[in-house]
Amino acid sequence: MKTINSISGMRKKALKWRQEGLSIALVPTMGFFHEGHLSLMRTAKSKADLVVVSLFVNPAQFGPNEDLSRYPRDFERDSKLAERQGVGCLFCPDAGDIYPPGFQTWIRVEGLSHGLCGASRPEHFRGVATIVAKLLIIVQPDMAIFGQKDFQQLRVIRRMVRDLNMPVNIIAHPIVREPDGLAMSSRNIYLDAKERESALSLFQALRLAEKMVAKGCRSGPEVIQAIRNHIQSFDNTKIDYIFLGDPESLEECREIVGEALLALAVWVGKTRLIDNTLLTQ
Amino acid sequence: MKTINSISGMRKKALKWRQEGLSIALVPTMGFFHEGHLSLMRTAKSKADLVVVSLFVNPAQFGPNEDLSRYPRDFERDSKLAERQGVGCLFCPDAGDIYPPGFQTWIRVEGLSHGLCGASRPEHFRGVATIVAKLLIIVQPDMAIFGQKDFQQLRVIRRMVRDLNMPVNIIAHPIVREPDGLAMSSRNIYLDAKERESALSLFQALRLAEKMVAKGCRSGPEVIQAIRNHIQSFDNTKIDYIFLGDPESLEECREIVGEALLALAVWVGKTRLIDNTLLTQ
Repeated sequence: MKTINSISGMRKKALKWRQEGLSIALVPTMGFFHEGHLSLMRTAKSKADLVVVSLFVNPAQFGPNEDLSRYPRDFERDSKLAERQGVGCLFCPDAGDIYPPGFQTWIRVEGLSHGLCGASRPEHFRGVATIVAKLLIIVQPDMAIFGQKDFQQLRVIRRMVRDLNMPVNIIAHPIVREPDGLAMSSRNIYLDAKERESALSLFQALRLAEKMVAKGCRSGPEVIQAIRNHIQSFDNTKIDYIFLGDPESLEECREIVGEALLALAVWVGKTRLIDNTLLTQ
Repeated sequence: MKTINSISGMRKKALKWRQEGLSIALVPTMGFFHEGHLSLMRTAKSKADLVVVSLFVNPAQFGPNEDLSRYPRDFERDSKLAERQGVGCLFCPDAGDIYPPGFQTWIRVEGLSHGLCGASRPEHFRGVATIVAKLLIIVQPDMAIFGQKDFQQLRVIRRMVRDLNMPVNIIAHPIVREPDGLAMSSRNIYLDAKERESALSLFQALRLAEKMVAKGCRSGPEVIQAIRNHIQSFDNTKIDYIFLGDPESLEECREIVGEALLALAVWVGKTRLIDNTLLTQ
């Protein structure tokens, strides 16, 4: 596995591979790999000749009071894990090269970025869209793989790729969970033992909603109220949002017809966790 | 010369050329070609194996009360003129394909887009940056040629290309003028005989400023006042802005040191004209 730091080096390498007729899959990450990341890499490996994993803790997608400085990092471990999944290249650019002095170009996906996580993280998706566009332009992969835990991010990126005519196939990967159901996240490391228990409330709430719908409930407000009650019964939880709506447009709905996205963001102590599921009528 | 309307057709054709090892120059235009456009095409032809001219009157760069509906169009004439310059391909996409239903992704170059034309045309450069990015992504040319009359546009595009790591060389082409000095523009056709006389005030004002600087004047306010007086001495002129500042950052300056950009926007009747020059100490 090759580790590349420079943008021009990455561009050259990827160009060479493309000229040799090799297909490339990109897995954009912020590092501190867990099984979720690793399964994205294995999926990438199964679909393309070469896997490029980008590892960049993107300052532009953190708000001023968020956890950029304490976001977990472990390059040595990440590097070994990536190599074991058959990754061909780890691309680790410097923040100063990605955002050089005078940088001022931002990509906004306007409608899809506003609700859900965008409501409490107003510039988050601007940062996500811009870095993903830059990575896609530098690497020019045939496909890029994203986890479905960040459902809104996936929608924003799909929309951007379509709107800007980027020649890349965006592939969604199902959420990978701990044995007890907690969605894997680099931020789970922030949780102490008691918070780890409360963190399970998100997964349990999603299962509760699925059961209600399976039993015939079609009322959004009823489902949301049941979820709210469940999460609030845990210590140290604070709901940021419970969203029920259309998985394409991300517009809220009051009635569950066809397929609906149920997405949650919950503070557990000082850690903000997200999770989601698709409810089918 | 090939005329292509579909985005996928253009992408395929350009890919084929690249795979054959041919270099491509893109000349983005809104059509209604004058000698300015044609000289961009000839420059493109002298630098690349193949020239792609895009012809798209981009609704996103017109404000709500601007001249989108009456912007001059003459496809037959444009097509013949382009062919005569040795253009390989005229790309004329439909607005409905460029901005399909649900389109919502916009690129903003934040600082550089605010002053000068951006002050009176607040979403103009958002529209310009977005369409140029889309064209660059679709065609993936080695180089793209822009006229220096739209100086701020050129700066915005250079900044965007650098910030988004787009692998393209942006080439500036000097302003092409009528024999009496009026900068060529598709909008000159709006001018009646009397307005055509007043339109010359822009070029004359620029020459006046150049002479003042050649004689040793270094004061921005003095130069601007002289220009203002000159333009206002013509019938039916209304100054939108007179800008004197740094050609890189587009920040205003009061003193002329090194190289300074002098840029004008003036209404002549109902037609808004722009022009500029670089003043050198």
